[in-house]
Amino acid sequence: MTESRQASAVSTQERAAADVIRIAHTVFTVTDLDASRDFYVGLLGLNVLHEEPGALYLRGVEDREWTLKLEQAPEAGVRHLAYRVRTDACLDGLVALAEREGLPYRWEEELDRPRLLRMQDPFGVPVAFYRESRTHRWLLQDYHLHRGPGLQRVDHVNVMTPDVGSMMAWYGERLGFRASELTEDEDGRIWAAWIQRRGGVHDLAMTNGAGPRLHHWAYWMPDAMSIIRACDILAGARQPERIERGPGRHGISNAFFLYVRDPDGHRIELYTSDYVTVDPDFETIRWQRDDPRRQTLWGAKTPRSWFEEGSRMEAFDGGWVALTESELKGMPSNVI
Amino acid sequence: MTESRQASAVSTQERAAADVIRIAHTVFTVTDLDASRDFYVGLLGLNVLHEEPGALYLRGVEDREWTLKLEQAPEAGVRHLAYRVRTDACLDGLVALAEREGLPYRWEEELDRPRLLRMQDPFGVPVAFYRESRTHRWLLQDYHLHRGPGLQRVDHVNVMTPDVGSMMAWYGERLGFRASELTEDEDGRIWAAWIQRRGGVHDLAMTNGAGPRLHHWAYWMPDAMSIIRACDILAGARQPERIERGPGRHGISNAFFLYVRDPDGHRIELYTSDYVTVDPDFETIRWQRDDPRRQTLWGAKTPRSWFEEGSRMEAFDGGWVALTESELKGMPSNVI
Amino acid sequence: MTESRQASAVSTQERAAADVIRIAHTVFTVTDLDASRDFYVGLLGLNVLHEEPGALYLRGVEDREWTLKLEQAPEAGVRHLAYRVRTDACLDGLVALAEREGLPYRWEEELDRPRLLRMQDPFGVPVAFYRESRTHRWLLQDYHLHRGPGLQRVDHVNVMTPDVGSMMAWYGERLGFRASELTEDEDGRIWAAWIQRRGGVHDLAMTNGAGPRLHHWAYWMPDAMSIIRACDILAGARQPERIERGPGRHGISNAFFLYVRDPDGHRIELYTSDYVTVDPDFETIRWQRDDPRRQTLWGAKTPRSWFEEGSRMEAFDGGWVALTESELKGMPSNVI
Amino acid sequence: MTESRQASAVSTQERAAADVIRIAHTVFTVTDLDASRDFYVGLLGLNVLHEEPGALYLRGVEDREWTLKLEQAPEAGVRHLAYRVRTDACLDGLVALAEREGLPYRWEEELDRPRLLRMQDPFGVPVAFYRESRTHRWLLQDYHLHRGPGLQRVDHVNVMTPDVGSMMAWYGERLGFRASELTEDEDGRIWAAWIQRRGGVHDLAMTNGAGPRLHHWAYWMPDAMSIIRACDILAGARQPERIERGPGRHGISNAFFLYVRDPDGHRIELYTSDYVTVDPDFETIRWQRDDPRRQTLWGAKTPRSWFEEGSRMEAFDGGWVALTESELKGMPSNVI
Repeated sequence: MTESRQASAVSTQERAAADVIRIAHTVFTVTDLDASRDFYVGLLGLNVLHEEPGALYLRGVEDREWTLKLEQAPEAGVRHLAYRVRTDACLDGLVALAEREGLPYRWEEELDRPRLLRMQDPFGVPVAFYRESRTHRWLLQDYHLHRGPGLQRVDHVNVMTPDVGSMMAWYGERLGFRASELTEDEDGRIWAAWIQRRGGVHDLAMTNGAGPRLHHWAYWMPDAMSIIRACDILAGARQPERIERGPGRHGISNAFFLYVRDPDGHRIELYTSDYVTVDPDFETIRWQRDDPRRQTLWGAKTPRSWFEEGSRMEAFDGGWVALTESELKGMPSNVI
Repeated sequence: MTESRQASAVSTQERAAADVIRIAHTVFTVTDLDASRDFYVGLLGLNVLHEEPGALYLRGVEDREWTLKLEQAPEAGVRHLAYRVRTDACLDGLVALAEREGLPYRWEEELDRPRLLRMQDPFGVPVAFYRESRTHRWLLQDYHLHRGPGLQRVDHVNVMTPDVGSMMAWYGERLGFRASELTEDEDGRIWAAWIQRRGGVHDLAMTNGAGPRLHHWAYWMPDAMSIIRACDILAGARQPERIERGPGRHGISNAFFLYVRDPDGHRIELYTSDYVTVDPDFETIRWQRDDPRRQTLWGAKTPRSWFEEGSRMEAFDGGWVALTESELKGMPSNVI
Repeated sequence: MTESRQASAVSTQERAAADVIRIAHTVFTVTDLDASRDFYVGLLGLNVLHEEPGALYLRGVEDREWTLKLEQAPEAGVRHLAYRVRTDACLDGLVALAEREGLPYRWEEELDRPRLLRMQDPFGVPVAFYRESRTHRWLLQDYHLHRGPGLQRVDHVNVMTPDVGSMMAWYGERLGFRASELTEDEDGRIWAAWIQRRGGVHDLAMTNGAGPRLHHWAYWMPDAMSIIRACDILAGARQPERIERGPGRHGISNAFFLYVRDPDGHRIELYTSDYVTVDPDFETIRWQRDDPRRQTLWGAKTPRSWFEEGSRMEAFDGGWVALTESELKGMPSNVI
Repeated sequence: MTESRQASAVSTQERAAADVIRIAHTVFTVTDLDASRDFYVGLLGLNVLHEEPGALYLRGVEDREWTLKLEQAPEAGVRHLAYRVRTDACLDGLVALAEREGLPYRWEEELDRPRLLRMQDPFGVPVAFYRESRTHRWLLQDYHLHRGPGLQRVDHVNVMTPDVGSMMAWYGERLGFRASELTEDEDGRIWAAWIQRRGGVHDLAMTNGAGPRLHHWAYWMPDAMSIIRACDILAGARQPERIERGPGRHGISNAFFLYVRDPDGHRIELYTSDYVTVDPDFETIRWQRDDPRRQTLWGAKTPRSWFEEGSRMEAFDGGWVALTESELKGMPSNVI
């Protein structure tokens, strides 16, 4: 009977916790805010929603809240990855989850968001959840104010972790994420996974590697030509080396993509043209790790840095989360 | 007590009924199937999933089921508009709703869908709901097989009705649709509404006019250039008159759009680049009816036919649903 | 013998005169330079090469010289249309031509061009010819500096005249222009002509109407999407009414086009994707005036203003050239 | 006196010979015509103008004559590169040039061209010149017939030669080609050159290497997106390995480009968005060989095969022209 009640309680909490809407924003620390501003605002054309000494709050033209905060700091890293949830009950459910699983958590506030639940997930990733956010008039139809390639809205985040399989299972079981695609080897071990809440291809992707680290933060682009324009702009500014990979088309997600690195090495993906996953019978697409179509349906080979480098993440009590190596070693064949 | 129980029962039914996922497919009757094939397959490049004497089942490259059936018939019209639902319980809830509200309904089957609940909504629209559908391998990444402008997936349907306000309320209260945008006049009367379940701008739009009639059926396009290509192809085939309106950009939805008319006059919209509405605090955007930015952020004036013409819809017991005139008369100022 | 010598002399002069390279620049007078700057620089994104009190010198990103001068003046009009020639001998030949035909001419200078031969052609058009121009580093590959839709380079000019046939013949015989396309009626009367020196579709187009007036000045755009972007930008700035016609695709020239009107009503065409005419056996494409494919392969009907309005041109001795009505009256059928 | 007369004669011949209009067509031998047809027609979408046993005559949608002949043969190679000339006198001038310089030549005919002057240039390249060609109705505005990425028209040819400097000088002095861009090292040795007759960036490019060989044959594309579409189509057909390099943007020419290899290894460039060079004071753009912006303003590193591989060329008396190694060895730094 107690067991049954507990199960029932868990189930209610789970249901509440499952009401994550979407990936929503992140906070990067950067070592030279002026250089970062030149890159994100001057070249990529992100829009400054708010500015204060030592920090910039940026957004795409469709974003009605800030989606990327840049914070001047001695070292570059990621403070947290934040998800928007539907109800306050969902936040309560997340607290219950944290307590049940022994995950550290605390309440914080940040600009425009009075009540942010910060916790560290079992894989060391600093995540945050919030319901309430002040929204701002978007710039979507203010085309005369769009600058650069016109980044549109936050799309997804990709995290490097040594145990993709477990992390995928945890986000699925606890938070109701569904896998749209995954990469496995012939032994059935999962090397990467794309999971979603919003009905698109992914809110969160996980890539095998020493972790937790941020692999990349992604913005949705209006079309492939705006991604080509990003390349032209970076080349015009004599910074083509900021392009790490692409443009090309992913097999996974079918997206037209470009990866760029900011002055601190944080990786940003410009991403467009994936597909819809709202149907309950959408079957997870499973790719073999060495299928060359997986990473790039077409496109140049992937540089080694793209597999090996990522941004470290802030530990719950300060400093950086220690990295754990992955037991899965090796790289796909189409790497240079 | 009885009342309370009923209320509770309704509430459970409503919750079940609310689990409509998205608009999913339609069936058009056409008077010359060969001419329709030339238009939909030969020019628009829709893909034939199945063919039988007197009927074609078509889909876009991302669609995993057929989304448009063309059926040879003596007269052109629309047999039904079909929505996909999440669970069988949802279908049961819809039956309960139909019985409670006295809406005619019956179970049907169609190709790939063994159990389709057909009913007539209170506004005379023949709608259908189904959970199960056989899915097919999509053509999304078979770019070598894409033809014409490359229609990607079903996006939404637009229905003409003399009482937009009531219809919006009914779909909202009974089926959980949320309004992303609406058009009202200075007296607060609603002339048009865009409502959604899927997290996009709309699954269903309603436009004031004698109804019920189909205003248009819409496909999502990969980008604006593919819509330009549709124009070029129609012009190349010496059928530019099939273009009724556009290309242009809507104020409402922000979409880049084109309206074409098939050989029977059925109206198809090619549509791309709208926005995401998953946030619970997304506030309905309200436009004044005479705001010139509403219909076309930019673009040529709208021809009168676009406001006046639509496809009639099949009555539950056969024949066509009789039209009811709207009490709201008049047109926006930017009509030619 | 004298006659023969004269013929020979003429022939030599003609050969020299024939070495016009291309249409090169124009000078507009405008009544509110700030408003014009907002339009041309702020919205269209033309680049300021030089600025002086009361005047702006603008260019596209590929232009190595200024191609549009805006000059503050009490009344709006066009000072001259200027062509670049290959040699000084060509300028001498043009002087001989002017003297032989009694055309007024004088030498002028303007910024970056020390020696400009200004004359009035037999149809009242103020034209100028020059060989030497100071060139500037282009901005073609400085993509980070491109603004707005990214106008690339001057493409052509279109002049309204009551006698298209004679004007086409004169530019052909005297200056070696070749017709790529023309519009005629069933009586063989020429309503419009597109003639070229540069190997493209046209440097100079002539349209039937009271003249001489400027119909439009055109810039080459990188692609159709940059023209769509121009529409979006004008709409974003709440100035969609500056779009007079388009976007669409011309039958003539096959170009994807947009016509916009500046604050004084000067008409600018944004133009792209025509074809090459360098082959000597390229046969002039002849269109019947009422062929609906001619003006717009596809696109909305043409507003009446597009046929009726133009910018007046400066007379050789000051003031404006008096207009001559055309005997050819009427409009194509696809006008609104 | 004799010397003076000879000089005068030469000068007249030179003037005549200088009237080359543009690069016009080529003939490839291929070892499996069906495989080549699948590639050129089925995937790239070139249009079959004529077909005969063992040969296909292809063209882009703007081409009014065939521009690529594929000929079944035991070995793959290039029969000739053909230029169109303005007059028969030009052909006579070219014969005089051949005799004066001891270049082998003969008259041939091919489909649609009754009189083709074939010769071998001093660098071993089999070139052909012709004035008369039967022209065909183009497909430019038959958009409904365009297939695949829509190759538009022949743009240029690129030849590998061990002596770029001499070859550039010969084509300049004898045939009036002008250099738009060139690559040199710190010792002033020329590694590559882009020379033109038509007023674009190049009709003929020369790249340092063992030669003579064909480096690539290039078609003009309507826009960058059509090049992206070519990538998607090749990937869809599971042939992404046919993409050798790109997409990217060249520093030289500013073109957006893609290089693909046909089933025999012949290299085709899809190319768009360069600039105009008709002005006589257009100064040759000179790049340092190790300037990374030169090859790719942005884009992935260039594979070694792109520098090393090319198609051999037919010798005047049959067989293949023997290759001469270049004394300039080494590669740019951005090669993988």
